Amino acid sequence: MNSVYFDHNATTQIDSRVLDAMLPWMRTQSGNPSSRHQYGRAAREAVAQARAQVAAACGAQAAQVIFTSSGTEANNLAIKGIASHQAVGQILYSAVEHPCVSRSALTMQAHGYQALSIAVDSHGKVDAARLKAQLEQPTSLVSVMLANNETGALQDVASMADMVRAQDSIMHTDAVQALGKIALNFNDLNVHAMTISSHKLHGPQGAAALILDKRLDIQPLLHGGGQERGLRSGTENVAAIVGFGLACELASHGLAHYQSHTLGLRTQLEAGLKAMKAVIFGEHTARLPNTSFFAIDGIEGETLVMALDRKGYAVASGSACSSDSTEPSAVLLAMGVEEDLARGAIRVSLGTQNNTQQVADFLQHLQQEIVRLKQLSAMAA
Amino acid sequence: MNSVYFDHNATTQIDSRVLDAMLPWMRTQSGNPSSRHQYGRAAREAVAQARAQVAAACGAQAAQVIFTSSGTEANNLAIKGIASHQAVGQILYSAVEHPCVSRSALTMQAHGYQALSIAVDSHGKVDAARLKAQLEQPTSLVSVMLANNETGALQDVASMADMVRAQDSIMHTDAVQALGKIALNFNDLNVHAMTISSHKLHGPQGAAALILDKRLDIQPLLHGGGQERGLRSGTENVAAIVGFGLACELASHGLAHYQSHTLGLRTQLEAGLKAMKAVIFGEHTARLPNTSFFAIDGIEGETLVMALDRKGYAVASGSACSSDSTEPSAVLLAMGVEEDLARGAIRVSLGTQNNTQQVADFLQHLQQEIVRLKQLSAMAA
Repeated sequence: MNSVYFDHNATTQIDSRVLDAMLPWMRTQSGNPSSRHQYGRAAREAVAQARAQVAAACGAQAAQVIFTSSGTEANNLAIKGIASHQAVGQILYSAVEHPCVSRSALTMQAHGYQALSIAVDSHGKVDAARLKAQLEQPTSLVSVMLANNETGALQDVASMADMVRAQDSIMHTDAVQALGKIALNFNDLNVHAMTISSHKLHGPQGAAALILDKRLDIQPLLHGGGQERGLRSGTENVAAIVGFGLACELASHGLAHYQSHTLGLRTQLEAGLKAMKAVIFGEHTARLPNTSFFAIDGIEGETLVMALDRKGYAVASGSACSSDSTEPSAVLLAMGVEEDLARGAIRVSLGTQNNTQQVADFLQHLQQEIVRLKQLSAMAA
Repeated sequence: MNSVYFDHNATTQIDSRVLDAMLPWMRTQSGNPSSRHQYGRAAREAVAQARAQVAAACGAQAAQVIFTSSGTEANNLAIKGIASHQAVGQILYSAVEHPCVSRSALTMQAHGYQALSIAVDSHGKVDAARLKAQLEQPTSLVSVMLANNETGALQDVASMADMVRAQDSIMHTDAVQALGKIALNFNDLNVHAMTISSHKLHGPQGAAALILDKRLDIQPLLHGGGQERGLRSGTENVAAIVGFGLACELASHGLAHYQSHTLGLRTQLEAGLKAMKAVIFGEHTARLPNTSFFAIDGIEGETLVMALDRKGYAVASGSACSSDSTEPSAVLLAMGVEEDLARGAIRVSLGTQNNTQQVADFLQHLQQEIVRLKQLSAMAA
């Protein structure tokens, strides 16, 4: 495969240093961390070291880290597991959450909870006044993502956490897209729980974590051998956890470079996009440095994604998780974007491997494809 | 680490051919299987191929395979997810199940289900007459493992499935310890659902599956992007799934060799154990070829595990998952073994990398340790 990869919010390539750290756990006999013999002890120590690395990268303590298999699992654990231990009330989530948050909240309706979304404005930002009004009703849990996977829009989670705590309720944030892209500090965010994931920051798939205030009771999703202090049973995926730990450490050290590099490329990209009269969603709010979500009026996003794929560019028409669907992005609809324009949305999510030449070439190909597709639709009309 | 590894029921080393198949998915940019571009399509095809390999290895159809992150997750999904869609009644599980089955059943009591164990005899076999009597009460689900992780004892799951189906109930089997060790056929077992896992058969940690009769409704544990036909959301762990697929294929091809090799070693081991007057649990019932679970009267199992670890042998005092606990094996207590003898239990689980010299040397070291520990306890008395 030799396409230019512009889909880093979907998944990233494992950093070669991360893979090197994982390989000893895959090439030789590695133990089950629950075993008492030397193989087991070595695996247990490796998991403990990774736990410290993960905690350090996000301003948490090692004892607050609950390893899971994916961000989806960590978000399910947070929403279902925390709400289960709170008095039955509302579960509030922003209208732009990943479906693993919103659908987890919706499943809790079977247990008497009310799942309600919190509106966002046209920039994709949660309406704080609206949240404040909604908090007047008894609230079991609030979940607002730190950075949106599609637009990259950032939320002011810390100030929402203050509002939520003032009502003696619980605040969770999905920080899967934030870790490695912006400075992240669990303590400063003042939330009770936070989700992070490995494969979004050049770690392997198969490892993620819920960072959890230990004073909070939580109902496990997975029962069994009692791993992760009884909160997440199942044999630890040692190699993946080791990789996650190092990926966190590398991302922390590389954050300044990551931000300046991707923001430089995005600025170049968006200058070109604006020359093509593209609408850039969330342009006027604080965003992740690497993410650009845009549409060109009259062009269908799916068609453009496939055309660009043939030209050698891997981009997305929205989140990877919803790409099987032909519905326009729920995130954009929540922002009040017209359906027709929303159907044209394309997401470019950049990484440090990308360079200015790739962006320049992409803009040229994009321009050609837009002309071609407009001609085709003119002929069809 | 240079200890002899005799703990293959806890976890196994990744086969080098399996790792070779995984590495391309870890060394280069690999896509999210939900993405539409070429990286995504390639990942999706790799998952599809692995699904076919897994299905072929256990007599299932590819469409019946639901990938999960671990056997624990698959067992939780089976017990909680299937029971949720059945009329509220009993959830029956054998008294020797892994805690991820029994504890999953117990959590369903909060929703009105009754979790009840089915007694086993002194060989560790489920008492079929007892099950038949228990089935007279309305039963939501029955779960009996195919092969026990501690004793290796095999259950006659197919005939139990007939009894369960005769009562219009649902039958699940945990076949995690069976896959790769004995011939396994989902269709022949006639169960509705079956759990298998990768890292027990020289595949990587992080991949497992629930094989499920598609006509059965099941409540997902993880909600979100709708992967695995909506039954298990979360980005697929592509490299691990690819490895799981090949590990299944290799295990099928290597089964005859595996069985003769490990059974030969176990026969040698148990001849030596009997000369030391060891009690071999489940000796007189059909067992996995690689597993020997034994005790020597008057010797404490944990102490012996640590002493053998220092001598260079990695063995277990029971299942890895319960090795943090100082309680005697629940499996042995269910078989009616006296607590004192159960506290002495040691599990040796062999693999194809083991050889006769290792077994012979182990027996010699074991003999020495037993003499030493008996002298120590005589001095203390």
